[in-house]
Amino acid sequence: MSVTDELLANAERYAAAFDKGDLPLPPAKGVAVLACMDARLNVYGLLGLQEGDAHVIRNAGGVVTADERRSLAISQRLLGTREIILIHHTGCGMLTFTDDAFKESIQSEVGIKPDWSAEAFSDLDEDVRQSVARIKADPFIPHTESVRGFVYEVETGRLREVKA
Amino acid sequence: MSVTDELLANAERYAAAFDKGDLPLPPAKGVAVLACMDARLNVYGLLGLQEGDAHVIRNAGGVVTADERRSLAISQRLLGTREIILIHHTGCGMLTFTDDAFKESIQSEVGIKPDWSAEAFSDLDEDVRQSVARIKADPFIPHTESVRGFVYEVETGRLREVKA
Repeated sequence: MSVTDELLANAERYAAAFDKGDLPLPPAKGVAVLACMDARLNVYGLLGLQEGDAHVIRNAGGVVTADERRSLAISQRLLGTREIILIHHTGCGMLTFTDDAFKESIQSEVGIKPDWSAEAFSDLDEDVRQSVARIKADPFIPHTESVRGFVYEVETGRLREVKA
Repeated sequence: MSVTDELLANAERYAAAFDKGDLPLPPAKGVAVLACMDARLNVYGLLGLQEGDAHVIRNAGGVVTADERRSLAISQRLLGTREIILIHHTGCGMLTFTDDAFKESIQSEVGIKPDWSAEAFSDLDEDVRQSVARIKADPFIPHTESVRGFVYEVETGRLREVKA
């Protein structure tokens, strides 16, 4: 049995106990969370979110690229969110390599250089500030009054705000 | 008090009860989930994931753009995941508009046309197949033997597999 099959069995249990079939499309709390994909970062558990509460956008690093700007524009313009919570975390894989080395290792194996920036970073707090700045500078995200950046500490479970 | 402040109070409660400070960086289950950002889709709850189990990548639609290919390449190449679970869902916001109309509305308001494709779609199952195909065609994602696509039904809580 694959891991996917194992998780599908969990999904059947979730459906059997499901009683939230009438939630509206727009997030109840009017907030979008942008966080790293890291397995240790449980966004729902950490922020106490329930089904229907918030958009959750995640990628390697919790960085802001064109696709996150797209998702945030859709979240605010079509689905009414107004606040943005950005979360990086300690012990992030993105701190363990450089763009150049990673892309060169792929090129040497595959024969093609990736057409994306790997978005690795070396200073966690600075990258949170960088990501907040990218959001605030975006002309297509209309509501940037409440864009706050945080570092989640995987060692303690704590969420620490990064000041501008 | 803003919604962000309210969620930060939840985060303090999470930290107070936290006892998972020694989880390793690579996901325990060796799986990456790519899902829509929709507020009603609770990926951890649905799949029975715990902290440390799986990478979770999310965006508007659960679509595959350069940034998801980047995240999946990092997930597999640097952190050892081998299976990919792709989840779209019924009642998706991406079914309610077209790229052209959305981008034109932004251009008429802001004066600049967005530099991204909105990635709207009109056929849910077909877009799941499209996303699986984009992953399988990517030269930088090495393990594509187990890439399976699903539709989560927000009305019933069920996860339905989309056959190729």
